[in-house]
Amino acid sequence: MMVLVTYDVETTTLAGKRRLRQVAKSCLNCGQRVQNSVFECLVDPVQFKQLKSRLEKIIDPDKDSLRYYMLGNNWKNRVEHVGAKAAYDPEGLLLID
Amino acid sequence: MMVLVTYDVETTTLAGKRRLRQVAKSCLNCGQRVQNSVFECLVDPVQFKQLKSRLEKIIDPDKDSLRYYMLGNNWKNRVEHVGAKAAYDPEGLLLID
Repeated sequence: MMVLVTYDVETTTLAGKRRLRQVAKSCLNCGQRVQNSVFECLVDPVQFKQLKSRLEKIIDPDKDSLRYYMLGNNWKNRVEHVGAKAAYDPEGLLLID
Repeated sequence: MMVLVTYDVETTTLAGKRRLRQVAKSCLNCGQRVQNSVFECLVDPVQFKQLKSRLEKIIDPDKDSLRYYMLGNNWKNRVEHVGAKAAYDPEGLLLID
């Protein structure tokens, strides 16, 4: 199933930027980054549980907001895109780290 | 039906910040801001068409990315939240404008 992960963090701090990189890294194992803090992850229920567990260890629950949207299996009919395509390079992210 | 609107813009520029405020303002007419650039809009098909038309006039399609996720009517079962709750004040946003 497709799960959309949206993540809100204060990226003006170094620690916030670091958490965003770590969230991105975890999501990129199972999907792609479609916007700066929006990730589309293709997971089965076990993988979703593992992903949640990883993400919830990374975030600061007092400062960050993490939302999951279950788009199911017929997710392609649920998504529409307008404007620029993001070109996020996971390798680039690792290099900055 | 619930439509999730996610918007990616370079907010380091004043023009980008302005576009984000305008997108937020349009989305707030039909829903709420759940993260900095994530909006949950409750619309019927006609309202969705109007919302899209408004948003697509605001954004810069060469620079900004806008995505719509159709969550349907049983959207409450599709959403999970972890961490801090965002407290976005639409009036505050208007005042900064």
